Amino acid sequence: MDIPKSITHVPAIQMKSEFVRILKKLGFTDDRAEKCADIFTVNSIEGVNSHGVNRFPRFVRNIKDGFIIPSAIPSVVHVSGSVEQWNGNLGPGPLNAVFATERAMTIAASNGMGLVAMANTNHWMRGGTYGWYAAKKGFVLISWTNTCQNMPAWGAKDPRLGNNPFVFAVPYMDEAIVLDFAMSQFSYGKMESFRNQGRKLPYPGGYNIKGELTDDPGEILETWRTLPAGYWKGAGLSLMLDILATILSGGLSTHDIHGCSSEYGVSQVFIAIDIRKLHNFPAIETAIDSIIANLHDSIPENNGVSVRYPGENIKKIREKSLAEGIPVDKKVWEEILSF
Amino acid sequence: MDIPKSITHVPAIQMKSEFVRILKKLGFTDDRAEKCADIFTVNSIEGVNSHGVNRFPRFVRNIKDGFIIPSAIPSVVHVSGSVEQWNGNLGPGPLNAVFATERAMTIAASNGMGLVAMANTNHWMRGGTYGWYAAKKGFVLISWTNTCQNMPAWGAKDPRLGNNPFVFAVPYMDEAIVLDFAMSQFSYGKMESFRNQGRKLPYPGGYNIKGELTDDPGEILETWRTLPAGYWKGAGLSLMLDILATILSGGLSTHDIHGCSSEYGVSQVFIAIDIRKLHNFPAIETAIDSIIANLHDSIPENNGVSVRYPGENIKKIREKSLAEGIPVDKKVWEEILSF
Repeated sequence: MDIPKSITHVPAIQMKSEFVRILKKLGFTDDRAEKCADIFTVNSIEGVNSHGVNRFPRFVRNIKDGFIIPSAIPSVVHVSGSVEQWNGNLGPGPLNAVFATERAMTIAASNGMGLVAMANTNHWMRGGTYGWYAAKKGFVLISWTNTCQNMPAWGAKDPRLGNNPFVFAVPYMDEAIVLDFAMSQFSYGKMESFRNQGRKLPYPGGYNIKGELTDDPGEILETWRTLPAGYWKGAGLSLMLDILATILSGGLSTHDIHGCSSEYGVSQVFIAIDIRKLHNFPAIETAIDSIIANLHDSIPENNGVSVRYPGENIKKIREKSLAEGIPVDKKVWEEILSF
Repeated sequence: MDIPKSITHVPAIQMKSEFVRILKKLGFTDDRAEKCADIFTVNSIEGVNSHGVNRFPRFVRNIKDGFIIPSAIPSVVHVSGSVEQWNGNLGPGPLNAVFATERAMTIAASNGMGLVAMANTNHWMRGGTYGWYAAKKGFVLISWTNTCQNMPAWGAKDPRLGNNPFVFAVPYMDEAIVLDFAMSQFSYGKMESFRNQGRKLPYPGGYNIKGELTDDPGEILETWRTLPAGYWKGAGLSLMLDILATILSGGLSTHDIHGCSSEYGVSQVFIAIDIRKLHNFPAIETAIDSIIANLHDSIPENNGVSVRYPGENIKKIREKSLAEGIPVDKKVWEEILSF
């Protein structure tokens, strides 16, 4: 997480109560305001301000603009065995995503696995949220969303693919191993923060106006030609995730979604697997321990910098935020207090 | 596909009959020799010699070494609703993988989706094979395998992750859209062929002995420090795919698998989804058409070089191979004839 010049430390309980206050004012019921505020707060506690407190003002604007309907709840469209198709009815993305995750877990609990595809929903903020949610309750989660067009196809100049975040989560020692990654090498949020700090990206992240690969975030933000992670690989995976989200949910595809400034009505997929039912369940923790121990035994590139698994440092960030308050850009916090 | 200095064009029918002859000699029944030969031949017809004809001599050696047991067939270990756990019993990887794909499709046909996790199986050659197989019969397939340790974790020097190929397939116009990609930016086969031709890689593909990123394939082949696709992203995804293959199948993880020179007993996952049962099935082809049309409308980086979807050029390669014969390195073909 980058540290802006002017930050304030907000206690988690205060942050959540401000979110609850604002959401209720916007028409959320007590219960839904509580749940939604909790997700924005936990994302911030865990160091993902870009999809927590920093994104909250935009969430509020999207509600006021009518893109997100506070009272809308998902409705089932079609059931085919372990596969269910739902309509998100443009409800709040985080609430719809928790609902879909829970529903996939319920199907998995009786069928071994469950897939919920949801059309017509909204930005879920941080995909990892739903991975942690499922994994802490003992389920594997594989999940993805499509987005607006914000990344070019491989060999193309104009953005026609989404960065379509993809989430994998596995339960591990009362916590979880969670991979949550977008198909572009760097997010727009990350590039903006590097530019604002006058820093170069650690690796090339897109193209400049001359069509050359560059590590200058400002030049990439001019062209919107972000680099797919792994070049043709991230671009290909983005396309597949969009096709699958679209056909499984019956919803909008990336190119059907309105411009990125008013992105709404996205399509998402949630696959839960109940590992408690597997023949080797008693041996699973040991198997993961062994994989992680082997990973940790890697020879580090830089002495003293240990090799980590995805999500490994979340616990430390969480504890620090809870002890010291969540570091927030003062301007962002002032805007939130003014709502 | 790279073109070796000395190639011969082998008619597909002749290639297949040589494979059948050799496999029968190694103890395959007529039916299984036929099926296995077909997979090696089709992979070659479709331009993937590295996992077709070029790999056949190693397949034969692995059988002679006892890593692959020609007569072994998969046995079911445990069933939990739509999730099934199978033991591949060290049978031939391609036959086991077709079996698992068919089984996942059968479960999907009655439950909407099906997952088959297979422990103790062998290298499946080209993962895309099973994607094409399922998609041509109307199913979505999501599948992956783990491998031996051939790629370092992010921030590490020594190879402790696999390149764990990942496959996505969707039916499309009597053909398919198939993405089949490994977690390393370039395969060892690709790097060897670039080195042999004295060529640089188009992008950095790993590290040299000084720990610097390089596009010199020879330097990377010295260190075995390949670059994960998308840096930390490909490394993280590799770890998750290995954990999932291991815990879902109850089989070996990447670091349990014997060295890469005698890789056997790998773990694989096959998820099939029956899209014919979805409420929007009649609209799916149109939805994909629209996504592909939008992709094709991209502004190309290089004039005249159109943007393609994964697997788009397979049909052309297939037709060319069938018309002109499959281009094969003469030495490889001579070795095969000598078996």
